[in-house]
Amino acid sequence: MRWIRRLATAMGGLILIVIAAAVLGLSVRWLQIQLFYQPLGGERTEEKLDYLDQVLESAQQSVREASSPAAEFERPPNFVIVLFDDLGWGDLSSYGNQMIRTPRIDQAAAEGVRMTDFYSASPVCTPSRAALLTGRYPVRSHTHNHVFFGESSPIATVRRMLGQGNELPVDEILIPEVLAAAGYATGMIGKWHLGGIPGHLPNDFGFESYYGVLTSNDMQPLHIYRDREVEVRDETERLTLGAFRDEDVDIEMRGVDQRTLTRRYTDEAIGFIEDNRDRPFFLYLAHSFPHVPHFADPEHAGESEGGIYGDVVEDLDRSTGALLDAIDRLGLAENTLVLITSDNGADYNGSPGFLRGRKGDVQEGGQKVPMIARWPGHIPAGGVTGKMAMNIDLFPTLLGLAGVGLPTDRDIDGRDMGALLTTAEGASSPHTELFYFPVLSGSRPVAIRNEHYKYHVSTGDTGRDKPILVDVHRDQENHNLIRRAPEQGAALAKSLASFAAELEENPRGWR
Amino acid sequence: MRWIRRLATAMGGLILIVIAAAVLGLSVRWLQIQLFYQPLGGERTEEKLDYLDQVLESAQQSVREASSPAAEFERPPNFVIVLFDDLGWGDLSSYGNQMIRTPRIDQAAAEGVRMTDFYSASPVCTPSRAALLTGRYPVRSHTHNHVFFGESSPIATVRRMLGQGNELPVDEILIPEVLAAAGYATGMIGKWHLGGIPGHLPNDFGFESYYGVLTSNDMQPLHIYRDREVEVRDETERLTLGAFRDEDVDIEMRGVDQRTLTRRYTDEAIGFIEDNRDRPFFLYLAHSFPHVPHFADPEHAGESEGGIYGDVVEDLDRSTGALLDAIDRLGLAENTLVLITSDNGADYNGSPGFLRGRKGDVQEGGQKVPMIARWPGHIPAGGVTGKMAMNIDLFPTLLGLAGVGLPTDRDIDGRDMGALLTTAEGASSPHTELFYFPVLSGSRPVAIRNEHYKYHVSTGDTGRDKPILVDVHRDQENHNLIRRAPEQGAALAKSLASFAAELEENPRGWR
Repeated sequence: MRWIRRLATAMGGLILIVIAAAVLGLSVRWLQIQLFYQPLGGERTEEKLDYLDQVLESAQQSVREASSPAAEFERPPNFVIVLFDDLGWGDLSSYGNQMIRTPRIDQAAAEGVRMTDFYSASPVCTPSRAALLTGRYPVRSHTHNHVFFGESSPIATVRRMLGQGNELPVDEILIPEVLAAAGYATGMIGKWHLGGIPGHLPNDFGFESYYGVLTSNDMQPLHIYRDREVEVRDETERLTLGAFRDEDVDIEMRGVDQRTLTRRYTDEAIGFIEDNRDRPFFLYLAHSFPHVPHFADPEHAGESEGGIYGDVVEDLDRSTGALLDAIDRLGLAENTLVLITSDNGADYNGSPGFLRGRKGDVQEGGQKVPMIARWPGHIPAGGVTGKMAMNIDLFPTLLGLAGVGLPTDRDIDGRDMGALLTTAEGASSPHTELFYFPVLSGSRPVAIRNEHYKYHVSTGDTGRDKPILVDVHRDQENHNLIRRAPEQGAALAKSLASFAAELEENPRGWR
Repeated sequence: MRWIRRLATAMGGLILIVIAAAVLGLSVRWLQIQLFYQPLGGERTEEKLDYLDQVLESAQQSVREASSPAAEFERPPNFVIVLFDDLGWGDLSSYGNQMIRTPRIDQAAAEGVRMTDFYSASPVCTPSRAALLTGRYPVRSHTHNHVFFGESSPIATVRRMLGQGNELPVDEILIPEVLAAAGYATGMIGKWHLGGIPGHLPNDFGFESYYGVLTSNDMQPLHIYRDREVEVRDETERLTLGAFRDEDVDIEMRGVDQRTLTRRYTDEAIGFIEDNRDRPFFLYLAHSFPHVPHFADPEHAGESEGGIYGDVVEDLDRSTGALLDAIDRLGLAENTLVLITSDNGADYNGSPGFLRGRKGDVQEGGQKVPMIARWPGHIPAGGVTGKMAMNIDLFPTLLGLAGVGLPTDRDIDGRDMGALLTTAEGASSPHTELFYFPVLSGSRPVAIRNEHYKYHVSTGDTGRDKPILVDVHRDQENHNLIRRAPEQGAALAKSLASFAAELEENPRGWR
């Protein structure tokens, strides 16, 4: 029996040693983060400031030239981005939903262009938003690992301990910073989700005014900020894991009542436009809904045939209608490009339409989202385009329309899709290829598409680790054509590997 | 330090005790299975034989009456069931596929009726097949736990050790047994998947002739049987885990060449019909494809625009065409009801159309399958019905058409859907409610639908454990209406709970 006792002691001892080592290692790392934490990035802050200085100088030059009596001064267009959270490709009537009614957004589509092959750069919130504002794939900005967590969440600390970061690097260049330097009034309303510590708030990245919440609406606490200060304090009881779930909609909210969020944002957005009617403006209205949990405006709750999810989407439709009405009423319609889109595909209770996959998946349903652009007099009414584009294209597109050159010290992955908007069905995609990154450790792209095919390095959802090639237009990522079209597959695999290697070498895309 | 040593010894000792107990327990159970294994079921064998005797007697009575010169003798119709394996709702051109061409099956649909809301009774093979042949939900026949494994697979032993069974109980009553007693020639060709030991083979359950394989085509070895004997021995190299994966299609097959399976089955099926042209017959042709791995007939391989999956489905289309041609050529068309369907929804490389979920899921894409019924002169051409039915309905439907009464000692969950076939758009569903069972431990139904709504006790795929109610016609199980239509939700929840209680009390449905 003695050897059994020895074996037991050895086994137990080994386990104790492993536990002790883990506790010690984690404690050291935790202390290190608490005492010496430095957000990721920052090495190109100087170049960024130089670029913004140039933009500012060039804008001042234009103003001086415009002041001379001979000059023809064309005021640059206003930009309004309406970003929904988790709205699926199939959640709008204009995209085929049979239960949810979105007449105002559909009307905007009828007045402008509706894109059927528009993607978010990631199937989840934080990376998608970083990409939209920077014009670069999320891996460029250290935002490629899932989403940022609120400062009071232990996951924020865990992320930092893992070296994943929990805030956007200060050396990234964002649309609002460039447009502010170019003389625009810049305002953000709604969900930020790109960092919650001083130096990484919306006002630190070029937004002159901010009103909204720093995280997703399932995270607690959900204080409402006015610029850098809390304006409305969320005192709702702390839930398990500090996160709302969809079924928690009956709990009593104290301080911040989520049923008022869409209406608050809308009023603020209209106020911003009214306040800035006389100068070029950029408004980034990032709604909190239809992300879970779903809280509908009590005035219309229960009206939608699509249930509580439909109620929330129809609130957003009314909000968008009110915003468009304000733009029209102020006589700004023909000088305002309005873009309506979503940060990723449908979550489990939204509709991906007939697409495969959902939020979190690199398949079409995870990243293909509605995109409607309205700009009367510039975008012909009723256009529909199936040419591919991605939210990384907004950065170069808006800068192009504002007459501002791109930064030259870094790669901008997006392309100017202006032609696609203004000539719709006639224009081709500004991209030959688009890349798709997984949610966790998304520093390596796992899929690529061109005009005809999409190539996945693995089917992913099946545990069968083999490449698939699919026809993007005639099939919803079901039938593998890798043996039928081996050359096309190999060409895409090669492009994918080459871009992956480039990213590994120089993830942030410095030039 | 002594207490640390004691703690280590205690921890290690506890682990050793747990391991020893597990090894001992498993060994005892293993020995028990090896020495004393009794397949599940058998308690109603006598009642089954009594019933079949009655059917036989009644059939002989009819023959005697028919021999009297005054009698009008109407020969009962022939039945052909063509069952595909894992063919998805969206895999046929007539169900919307844009890449795979299935002109012969589509033609059968045009000549008969196409059902859009037809379900398999399970999202996987074994339980679905048991349900189809017995007219009862899988839980009735101890087939509700995933699928049966080949006799040489260790999983077969594990299943038995877990008390899950690995063969259909002998006291179940199958369509071929009843029809054989009623004077039909009964033949099965293709995949059985309901047991691999003597007493549980196709010939033991009423099929007078059998040609095919006992398991799925990814399981090894895949011998081809003629009745109870191996006719072609599979000597292909044993793969890891004894199972083919989709990417294994390049390995050399010895003995059984899967590329010949569809053609072999087709030839045998046509031979069976030719041999039995002069008496009523029942043919159950259960194809092995498009289950993975995909082996296409070399004569047409590479022809389909849907890749190798499309090749395999187009092989099945040609096979079905050849079978229908033989029926027509023999002048049997107007006396032969042909039913074309699938055992469950699309696997990862097939198409569920626009439905949510796939093989393995209780959502629509897992269980909604094509169903085409052709019977010239009896089923009006070109009908389409969206009324719900399930493969458990084949048992009462075929028995009804053959003029045979149902057994009375047990519940038959299926309903006669004859009216739905012959009057298509005018008829209503024979069910007020259908139930859905999960793949593992599927003894408790987890979803229910009626004509308008489907209720799931949990969204399942999201980890969010809450009930959802969806509109089956206007939405693909996305938008939860449980708060909008609480009464309908409660009514379905009540029916579901009541049926679950009934099943728990009397799972096999003995009366």
